[in-house]
Amino acid sequence: MEGSGERLVLNVGGVRYETYHSTLRAFPGTRLYQLTEPPMGGTLAREVFFDRSPHLFGYVLGYYRTRQLHCPPDICRAVLEEELAFWGLADAPLAPCCWLKLSGGDGRAEDFHAWEESELGEEQGLLGPIESPNSTRAQGTWKPWLWTLLNQPCSSLAGKCAALLSMLFLLGVLVIFFQETSVQLDYFTSNFRPLEPWDGEKEGLPPPQAPSPGLVYQRAPHLLYLELLCVLWFGAELLARSISCPNKVKFLRSPMTLVDLASLFPVLVELAVGRRAERHPRLCLVLGALRVLYVLKLGRLLGLVEKPLALRVLAHTLRSSWREAGLLLLLWAGEILLFGSLFLYGELLGTGHGQGQSEVHFADILTCFWWTVITLTTVGYGDIYPMSALGQVTAAITAMAGMLTSVLLVPILLVRFQRCYAVALARQKLRPSGTL
Amino acid sequence: MEGSGERLVLNVGGVRYETYHSTLRAFPGTRLYQLTEPPMGGTLAREVFFDRSPHLFGYVLGYYRTRQLHCPPDICRAVLEEELAFWGLADAPLAPCCWLKLSGGDGRAEDFHAWEESELGEEQGLLGPIESPNSTRAQGTWKPWLWTLLNQPCSSLAGKCAALLSMLFLLGVLVIFFQETSVQLDYFTSNFRPLEPWDGEKEGLPPPQAPSPGLVYQRAPHLLYLELLCVLWFGAELLARSISCPNKVKFLRSPMTLVDLASLFPVLVELAVGRRAERHPRLCLVLGALRVLYVLKLGRLLGLVEKPLALRVLAHTLRSSWREAGLLLLLWAGEILLFGSLFLYGELLGTGHGQGQSEVHFADILTCFWWTVITLTTVGYGDIYPMSALGQVTAAITAMAGMLTSVLLVPILLVRFQRCYAVALARQKLRPSGTL
Amino acid sequence: MEGSGERLVLNVGGVRYETYHSTLRAFPGTRLYQLTEPPMGGTLAREVFFDRSPHLFGYVLGYYRTRQLHCPPDICRAVLEEELAFWGLADAPLAPCCWLKLSGGDGRAEDFHAWEESELGEEQGLLGPIESPNSTRAQGTWKPWLWTLLNQPCSSLAGKCAALLSMLFLLGVLVIFFQETSVQLDYFTSNFRPLEPWDGEKEGLPPPQAPSPGLVYQRAPHLLYLELLCVLWFGAELLARSISCPNKVKFLRSPMTLVDLASLFPVLVELAVGRRAERHPRLCLVLGALRVLYVLKLGRLLGLVEKPLALRVLAHTLRSSWREAGLLLLLWAGEILLFGSLFLYGELLGTGHGQGQSEVHFADILTCFWWTVITLTTVGYGDIYPMSALGQVTAAITAMAGMLTSVLLVPILLVRFQRCYAVALARQKLRPSGTL
Amino acid sequence: MEGSGERLVLNVGGVRYETYHSTLRAFPGTRLYQLTEPPMGGTLAREVFFDRSPHLFGYVLGYYRTRQLHCPPDICRAVLEEELAFWGLADAPLAPCCWLKLSGGDGRAEDFHAWEESELGEEQGLLGPIESPNSTRAQGTWKPWLWTLLNQPCSSLAGKCAALLSMLFLLGVLVIFFQETSVQLDYFTSNFRPLEPWDGEKEGLPPPQAPSPGLVYQRAPHLLYLELLCVLWFGAELLARSISCPNKVKFLRSPMTLVDLASLFPVLVELAVGRRAERHPRLCLVLGALRVLYVLKLGRLLGLVEKPLALRVLAHTLRSSWREAGLLLLLWAGEILLFGSLFLYGELLGTGHGQGQSEVHFADILTCFWWTVITLTTVGYGDIYPMSALGQVTAAITAMAGMLTSVLLVPILLVRFQRCYAVALARQKLRPSGTL
Repeated sequence: MEGSGERLVLNVGGVRYETYHSTLRAFPGTRLYQLTEPPMGGTLAREVFFDRSPHLFGYVLGYYRTRQLHCPPDICRAVLEEELAFWGLADAPLAPCCWLKLSGGDGRAEDFHAWEESELGEEQGLLGPIESPNSTRAQGTWKPWLWTLLNQPCSSLAGKCAALLSMLFLLGVLVIFFQETSVQLDYFTSNFRPLEPWDGEKEGLPPPQAPSPGLVYQRAPHLLYLELLCVLWFGAELLARSISCPNKVKFLRSPMTLVDLASLFPVLVELAVGRRAERHPRLCLVLGALRVLYVLKLGRLLGLVEKPLALRVLAHTLRSSWREAGLLLLLWAGEILLFGSLFLYGELLGTGHGQGQSEVHFADILTCFWWTVITLTTVGYGDIYPMSALGQVTAAITAMAGMLTSVLLVPILLVRFQRCYAVALARQKLRPSGTL
Repeated sequence: MEGSGERLVLNVGGVRYETYHSTLRAFPGTRLYQLTEPPMGGTLAREVFFDRSPHLFGYVLGYYRTRQLHCPPDICRAVLEEELAFWGLADAPLAPCCWLKLSGGDGRAEDFHAWEESELGEEQGLLGPIESPNSTRAQGTWKPWLWTLLNQPCSSLAGKCAALLSMLFLLGVLVIFFQETSVQLDYFTSNFRPLEPWDGEKEGLPPPQAPSPGLVYQRAPHLLYLELLCVLWFGAELLARSISCPNKVKFLRSPMTLVDLASLFPVLVELAVGRRAERHPRLCLVLGALRVLYVLKLGRLLGLVEKPLALRVLAHTLRSSWREAGLLLLLWAGEILLFGSLFLYGELLGTGHGQGQSEVHFADILTCFWWTVITLTTVGYGDIYPMSALGQVTAAITAMAGMLTSVLLVPILLVRFQRCYAVALARQKLRPSGTL
Repeated sequence: MEGSGERLVLNVGGVRYETYHSTLRAFPGTRLYQLTEPPMGGTLAREVFFDRSPHLFGYVLGYYRTRQLHCPPDICRAVLEEELAFWGLADAPLAPCCWLKLSGGDGRAEDFHAWEESELGEEQGLLGPIESPNSTRAQGTWKPWLWTLLNQPCSSLAGKCAALLSMLFLLGVLVIFFQETSVQLDYFTSNFRPLEPWDGEKEGLPPPQAPSPGLVYQRAPHLLYLELLCVLWFGAELLARSISCPNKVKFLRSPMTLVDLASLFPVLVELAVGRRAERHPRLCLVLGALRVLYVLKLGRLLGLVEKPLALRVLAHTLRSSWREAGLLLLLWAGEILLFGSLFLYGELLGTGHGQGQSEVHFADILTCFWWTVITLTTVGYGDIYPMSALGQVTAAITAMAGMLTSVLLVPILLVRFQRCYAVALARQKLRPSGTL
Repeated sequence: MEGSGERLVLNVGGVRYETYHSTLRAFPGTRLYQLTEPPMGGTLAREVFFDRSPHLFGYVLGYYRTRQLHCPPDICRAVLEEELAFWGLADAPLAPCCWLKLSGGDGRAEDFHAWEESELGEEQGLLGPIESPNSTRAQGTWKPWLWTLLNQPCSSLAGKCAALLSMLFLLGVLVIFFQETSVQLDYFTSNFRPLEPWDGEKEGLPPPQAPSPGLVYQRAPHLLYLELLCVLWFGAELLARSISCPNKVKFLRSPMTLVDLASLFPVLVELAVGRRAERHPRLCLVLGALRVLYVLKLGRLLGLVEKPLALRVLAHTLRSSWREAGLLLLLWAGEILLFGSLFLYGELLGTGHGQGQSEVHFADILTCFWWTVITLTTVGYGDIYPMSALGQVTAAITAMAGMLTSVLLVPILLVRFQRCYAVALARQKLRPSGTL
């Protein structure tokens, strides 16, 4: 006997929910609606059993009662989806006030994945898939040994020695490099006006003598040979690394390998060109500038230090937000073009031209762009600053825009960092298999 | 038989709650109170059934027991309201310790709405409501086609070509513009003292020669005609856009349209005035300044790039917090007036006037305001700085106030960004209909 | 028959929990323990009923089972306390992993209170308790009317007119003030060396002529009388305000009243002293400096604007964190003393004294402190900068310390702002009585 | 009779869950699986009772149904672990969408511990374990009394007097110190070129006269004796402190003790050397620089003030993140080396060497590093700035990198501060025993 006021007991996983038949008739076609239709020639059961979670069924029944689908806080999306599909409610719209509950604890699977991949890439470097002992036996076991020696120096005494030696050579080459800059600086500054403190000028110093014509740029040869020694060591290290690396393609694409490779050249070129280089000081300068790569090699040392979690997360955040960074750089470039042009015309319109009493501080629009960068970053050297009221208004707006732009970076970085830090902390506390 | 110690079973959606009659008599007039009053000539039921959510009823019963209405964490406001209304408790005050639970997951409906509207506005631009195919057939189908071509260049090959052409013309006109600034700068700086490095002054340079009287400002005519060509293309594009736009009013009000329109003028005016312009260099300067609009047109290119979610949220946050921004600007203006005046009097009182040994760096109060802006934003060019102790104290306070003011921006921006980002992430994971 | 394996049914608010007698014997002396002790000459009941929340009882029973007291997330502290007290577990220690759950939604009552008080203070100002119509009838109804007129100008047309008039007078007095600064600046700068651009110096300008001895500082008298007019209006307004104010003590203590009062004096003193003032220019300067109070009066205008929620919360946050601000200022002062002294000795030790080739940029230690402020706030005018390597190291450390100090402000401000904003948002959504 | 469709009632703590035998056979070997295996010669029970939490069992049963282990939000890790172990599911992997739920309220035990230790360390200082009255009776009770007197001055009148006296002596020694700097500055600056304002130079001032040869650096002797008096007091205080301190080792290692000790020396050395010091002005300078320690002693005063919670948390955060700080400093150092070198070569390559029209602002690479620090921190004094386009590009990149680096500090500091602040707030609301 079917009656709209008839009560029906739904035993869901042991919990007995009771409701009216009329309530279940809210959504035709669903599994619960079918309970209210008597089978051919039969009668309706007074109690039906379902082997489902009793907790979520309360929300499903609430949907029949109020026609609004809510969900418990921090419910896993997959769980809710499966439950709704079972009850035939897969296309029931979730009430907007519950949209945020769903995203809270969920959707982080890809975050966990990205983080684990980043950690693996960081830790194992270019190791590639761990090879089974059988496959490596054929090709000799010295390659993995060498690779470990060079990349995980803390694992053996030989590794520590090699790392120490590398560090010493690196320090040596840096000292030689800084020494050279001093020699080069002396040579090049004696060719144009020497640097003087401000006040020296008024006391009638003799004009800086022209460099004697025969004077050529002369490096101490022993320094060059010392540098060559260091570079040869680096070359040998790079060779050992490239031979022992299990994943050659990834290794060659790594930016650090390019830096290693490029840093071998300057001293070789200088030796190849030999004495003639000294007659082409500009070449020496370019070779010197290339030696800045030695400084970049310091980054490898930083890679050997064990970094705390917060910094690994920060690095991961920065790496994963390169698209935002790119667009913000574009925004910055637009601001520079805009404010630079405005500043130029502001100054030109503002200064009373032809009256000889004021002047502008720049000679072309590129200098204006330079000024804009320095103002936007609030560095404000003071080499260029507006002289006219109109220019000052432009500059004030530029300075404020600069402050705002720098503040804009904070929320994006922070929100991503917070998410990633929570993920990394949670991962750290579980075993790799995901067990507690 | 009614007794105060009598127990009553409340079957709420299948869950049997039991309580004493005396407990339910706490709030007269409510639905549960009425259960304890025997109907005319009848007896009280020992068990009553309600087809409501059993979960929330626990909190309702707790209200009768403890006279404090608590609620589960992250409960949806609408659900709680409906439940309380059913039990006749609509005006029961929520305990203060639960006020925050309610706002956690709720009240975001308007946030979701604002975000969806902002996304629509961004994506469909001035498209207006999507017209049904029938209505557009009458007025021709080329208008939507043209609109799509111009605004969604990635959708077709012709669109890509048109976008590429536009970009080339824009780059061309920018190159011409930067070229012009150089010519103008040369002309105007040769009328007043030419820009020189600091140290050139002491070596007895000849005084800058006065510009020859007949010298007029002369632009290369071919550049002008090239610019005209570019501008004609922009004009044609704007015309095509304005004809094909489905929502004319919104289109005309858009700031980008105004920029497009205004950027057509400078070259036309210059051509109209012709040779006479060269005798009124100030007019040329104003026309040049107007050409800064070309730079603003670059913003349209930025609009074509697909932006990542974080940046769209950031833009939405900035747009929706214009009131806060306005009041903070007012605060800034007040600070500038205040510290500028203080600085002026600080310097005047601090320097020993009449003793010829110190001086101030400014000639009027406007320069003081300029100094205040540069100090508040921590740019600090150094063109003006305090010379007296009193002025230095003022400046120190100003600099600290500037740092504090810049820090004030962070929390407002951040809190709004976080809310909006959570909303946007949640929305992104649901289908437009709100289904999972 | 009592047996340790005997099961007992605990009917808590309708939910039947079952457990062993031995479990309940974990904590002697508690209410549940007593259930396991047979009464004098009686037998133990197999089912006991308690009219309590069944939800929390699960955690209480869990405490008997595992001897660790956990609690559900976001539980209200008061609810938990009452429940524990009922079961005789008031001094049961909460497991540390649940300490944070408790503080999440709770303990905000005082936050709500502080926020509501701050809002009342802001909105009703010095209104004090709203007086009943009866009590005000005796003392006349014009006082509240006048008070409302002056403090809530949007409520009536007369109020709007008065506010507009006040604003006009304020603008007028500001214009006069800025006019005066220009006159004073001219007078005082002509007494010492006039301000010149850098390059004017080399072209043999005549030395600045000494001011003619008879020249006295002369203000335009009509400006003085105009200013007097404005100030008389302000005086009248202040008088009306002080008469109509319901809470005189609070009114007189308000800083805005002090500003209003003090801003009346300068023009009166100047008129009283009359012509003699012009022979004592320093007095005029002090009177001028006092007029900066006119700028502060602009703050009253800001008070009339309706502020958005985020800014009200920000103001409340700043007001409520004055203790943190004070200690950070102390920290700052310490840094200034420390780095200033270090810089002085760094420079003195670093420069080769007696060799005439370098010099220091400061004449006393106060100037060093000034330099430290400008470096810590990263303003960096460049009027003073280190000349020696030792001084440069000090300066580098100072600059880094400055950046760190400014970053320290962010978290304190942010965490407090976030808490207060959540509270304010939640409060805004409830009716004043706390009902939904 | 065992049937796969047979239903089984699991009475878990009173809540009756029902499920099919087939569901429980999902994970062989677990406790629930064994229920489906009939014991030797017996039959399966239709209902089984377990004295466990019914709430969590729902999730356990869900694992059998869906083969995915979810957990309720904000569950305590220990509770979940114990429950899983009971059901024989200790190595069941948690679904990734629940990983974050677990970390939310849990794992904070160590945070609480770290915070409590930090608070103890702060409050009790070097008190060590509180000694029982018996053990102290033997060694006299005056030591604890003296220690309390000196370290908790607010606890007694004598303590307040001693603290006041200390503060006065400290102020006195600071005044003397600042006085001395002025004397030293006068002496040393008269030996090289005296400091002059910029514009004094052009008016033909006489060259600064050489210091008269017999002039020696002469301090006022009475100042020296006054300083000696103050220092003797500090020495006596340090002695009293070191005698009364219960934990000598910790006391000697404290940095504040070192400062106290070192600050005794300068005046003693100066007295010991006597008149000869005046012939070795450099020694005086070094002794003067050592006196900066007096400023550091001010920190002790700060320690006596009661600090609000937010600042204590901030200090704890800074102390506990020294590893992150160290690595960020390393990053900063790398940036300085890199950008400094780039700037040097940028300037050298950019300036047209040999053409005498431009110059560089630096004489060695150390000056370049100095410039880099000042640009990275956005101080920007303007003593050194790029003159060439290439150098300007380097500088622009440096300035932007500086802004980014400063922004990087915010998220790390903030996330740690937020965690620690929540912990500290929660702890503050509980009694030391962990009771409510």
